[in-house]
Amino acid sequence: MSGLSRRGLFGLGVAGVAAVGAGAVATRALVDEPVAHASSTSGPVPFYGSHQAGITTPAQDRLHFVTFDVVTKERAELVGLLQDWTAAAARMTQGKDAGTFGAVGGDPEAPPDDTGEALGLPPSGLTLTIGFGASLFDDRFGLADRRPPALADLPAFPGEDLQKEISGGDLCVQACANDPQVAVHAIRNLARIGFGKVAVRYSQLGFGRTSSTSRAQATPRNLMGFKDGTNNMKLEDTAMLRDYLWAAPGDGPSWMDGGSYLVTRKIRMHVETWDRAPLAEQQAIFGRDKGKGAPLTGTNEFDAPDFAKTGPDGTPVIAADAHVRLAHPSSHGGARLLRRGYNFVDGSDGLGRLDAGLFFMAYQRDPRTQFVPIQKTLSAKDALNEYIKHVSTGLFACPPGVVDAGDYWGRALFS
Amino acid sequence: MSGLSRRGLFGLGVAGVAAVGAGAVATRALVDEPVAHASSTSGPVPFYGSHQAGITTPAQDRLHFVTFDVVTKERAELVGLLQDWTAAAARMTQGKDAGTFGAVGGDPEAPPDDTGEALGLPPSGLTLTIGFGASLFDDRFGLADRRPPALADLPAFPGEDLQKEISGGDLCVQACANDPQVAVHAIRNLARIGFGKVAVRYSQLGFGRTSSTSRAQATPRNLMGFKDGTNNMKLEDTAMLRDYLWAAPGDGPSWMDGGSYLVTRKIRMHVETWDRAPLAEQQAIFGRDKGKGAPLTGTNEFDAPDFAKTGPDGTPVIAADAHVRLAHPSSHGGARLLRRGYNFVDGSDGLGRLDAGLFFMAYQRDPRTQFVPIQKTLSAKDALNEYIKHVSTGLFACPPGVVDAGDYWGRALFS
Repeated sequence: MSGLSRRGLFGLGVAGVAAVGAGAVATRALVDEPVAHASSTSGPVPFYGSHQAGITTPAQDRLHFVTFDVVTKERAELVGLLQDWTAAAARMTQGKDAGTFGAVGGDPEAPPDDTGEALGLPPSGLTLTIGFGASLFDDRFGLADRRPPALADLPAFPGEDLQKEISGGDLCVQACANDPQVAVHAIRNLARIGFGKVAVRYSQLGFGRTSSTSRAQATPRNLMGFKDGTNNMKLEDTAMLRDYLWAAPGDGPSWMDGGSYLVTRKIRMHVETWDRAPLAEQQAIFGRDKGKGAPLTGTNEFDAPDFAKTGPDGTPVIAADAHVRLAHPSSHGGARLLRRGYNFVDGSDGLGRLDAGLFFMAYQRDPRTQFVPIQKTLSAKDALNEYIKHVSTGLFACPPGVVDAGDYWGRALFS
Repeated sequence: MSGLSRRGLFGLGVAGVAAVGAGAVATRALVDEPVAHASSTSGPVPFYGSHQAGITTPAQDRLHFVTFDVVTKERAELVGLLQDWTAAAARMTQGKDAGTFGAVGGDPEAPPDDTGEALGLPPSGLTLTIGFGASLFDDRFGLADRRPPALADLPAFPGEDLQKEISGGDLCVQACANDPQVAVHAIRNLARIGFGKVAVRYSQLGFGRTSSTSRAQATPRNLMGFKDGTNNMKLEDTAMLRDYLWAAPGDGPSWMDGGSYLVTRKIRMHVETWDRAPLAEQQAIFGRDKGKGAPLTGTNEFDAPDFAKTGPDGTPVIAADAHVRLAHPSSHGGARLLRRGYNFVDGSDGLGRLDAGLFFMAYQRDPRTQFVPIQKTLSAKDALNEYIKHVSTGLFACPPGVVDAGDYWGRALFS
């Protein structure tokens, strides 16, 4: 089936690489001038490593996130699926087709072993990151005694309006890439390979990253028009990553050593209401200037906010209920998150409004001491709450990386 | 409000341009090396012209499509909105902020005159294209006698399952860009400017173009994994554009001279079922090879299909119900469409399946002799029907272009 191989097409050189927008530009750049920023948007991200890719990887621009319910009752089938998925992920992240699942060698009487919509597209920085939800640790698969304490159910937060059908899931997979077609292709092929063993619970597309995970990236804007994640933990913050990102020996069950915990929250924004709020109010709510993203006590984006500073009337320049104050590490004993969220627009809501907002994703060492206290503060006091609503939630234990072709997603959990 | 101006940020040079993925790469390329393919993804598309941009413009990679219901009862308010929208579109397509609607000059006690999420992003090839639906020509605005005969309601087609809430609309705006944040920003600001005069009826994001509209573009793939639109009418086909794309004097009311008619159809694909169909069946249904996109009677994508050719068993190599045969101009007296559709994934459907497919968009001179007979044939006979379902429909009269700053969208219709 050489005509259906992404690798095969790459072998043809430029002529074989379909010109699909950003990917195409980057591809041409790769051929003409092998410079760093070209490979960073269309090239491959290594799949094997001690940590999973897609966490500290400089945030790609597009997301396809999915959670699955496991429908098989057989532990061996689940393990087999994780092995098949790992092999497919190792291939797809390197720009190859999903692999020989079902039809081997191109039997035309069998379904194709890849769905085809990414044929000719470069790897596009694709990463695939797996997580295990709390519901996987019930008694179906003999995992009840392996549930990490850090995977404790999140408490209820004031004001949330969670929809069960877009929350939770036994498994999650985060696909990030610089070409949405590549991210969609990857999730779709994992779903295809899992047919009969897992069913899609929900899936979410995101079109614009809302955080930087590297100092080499500029801070992007959320759909409230503000720079978001200025103070995010970044891959260069080595000591912080150790303290606040990766699960370490002794934290919990050893199968999570080197892993991380992912919290997802779909946050609907009432953009129409927001758009009618005065600029001064918007800036007071964030505690930052809208243009540059500088704290209201500073002049540049990365200036440290001065929470003690008062104005002529004696009140704090950055209000007591300003988002930047309440979310700041100094309000939480230094606790940090590695945020990796995406803007979304899911069409409209039938009431004349855009169904838009932020699909919040944050990785951390222990949600009980990181996301939970931060969100408790925000949900109780944040001035932003008038304009947002949390409509879905998720918590997943993301195991350490797959170290080589003999390893697979979650091996330590099942062995 | 200089800190909030996209133009202002551009003046800062590279440092002021937020690095958001594809846009960022292209921007750097623009600064470092002003070559053609960089400006084609991040640069501006001219707004003024005898035809609207966004029709023959080489198809950008991302779509945000919206339709509005007009809620004001005042003709003058509607005309005023079209003038305001035109001014905002002229600005945003050139990479500027939406303009001074509401707050002038940056009064902090007024809402910002731009929502901000595109600050620092380049024009990204944004085009905004307006259309008028049949419902606008009822008796609300005195337009009943100006409805073009070509804007005749589409007939019912076999097998369609149309959802009223995502069909129709008094007005539509198609935003296409190479950065989805730029397309989303444009639609959102038009909705903001229209508050109280129009309400969003529905909106649809598309992430991958499924047709080329220029010979300079490679043919992309749809979510069935096949190259789509190989035989599309393209901007280089000058004689065909005259015959099959642009409304001409004498066709109908003169306000549409130089305009075009847009048909939209949201086509849900049953991708999970499709993915389990044998490769040979998939190729027989399309009448094309999946790898290269060649007709089954040829060896290369652009080879003309030989519909008369039979195989060893005497049956046609390209089956009687193959998509390429039924959709081919030779089956419809040479009738052509300029297709401009996009792949979509709207999450999942609650039944364990991706809610995915094609948002079909096609421009033409007269749907009565182009889309309608083609779709009649396809809906009656196409082997593909087993795997797809039309769930929304739209038909819009897209007026000619805005020629200068004194003109506005639909001026000839209202004067």
